[in-house]
Amino acid sequence: MKNFLVEAEIMPKRGVNDPQGEAVLSGLRLLGFEAASKVRVGKLIRFQVAAETSDEARADATSMCEKLLANPVIEEFELEVSEA
Amino acid sequence: MKNFLVEAEIMPKRGVNDPQGEAVLSGLRLLGFEAASKVRVGKLIRFQVAAETSDEARADATSMCEKLLANPVIEEFELEVSEA
Repeated sequence: MKNFLVEAEIMPKRGVNDPQGEAVLSGLRLLGFEAASKVRVGKLIRFQVAAETSDEARADATSMCEKLLANPVIEEFELEVSEA
Repeated sequence: MKNFLVEAEIMPKRGVNDPQGEAVLSGLRLLGFEAASKVRVGKLIRFQVAAETSDEARADATSMCEKLLANPVIEEFELEVSEA
């Protein structure tokens, strides 16, 4: 059994309204940051997964994302898996 | 003026309590994912910055993180800047 580091990047899907991103953009404008645009806010979840192989760790992490970490209706996720 | 894509990864600092991460770990355990551990939950913010150069875009984005996007007391951030 090895430990793998997993980084899950979870973002609102294209076309899905992102109120958090709109709020951040408003905040940036209020602070005078005119150069910023198209803000999207997502989640970054880092964790360890104990598994025999990197593929097994990725499969486990995919299942975790589908069942708990991401909302598949409005969010998409990408995984990076590396050895700890 | 060019547009640059900025990806800001904002995570709770080492040693700072991460109640969101603890809640996610509890959720994973309840769903039977025994292999997961050490969960840390952060934010992933993607946006565009209009600037003359990549360095200028990075400097602007750093300022945005310091002033609004991240809480420097409990969070640290990393930036990736690429041309749009």
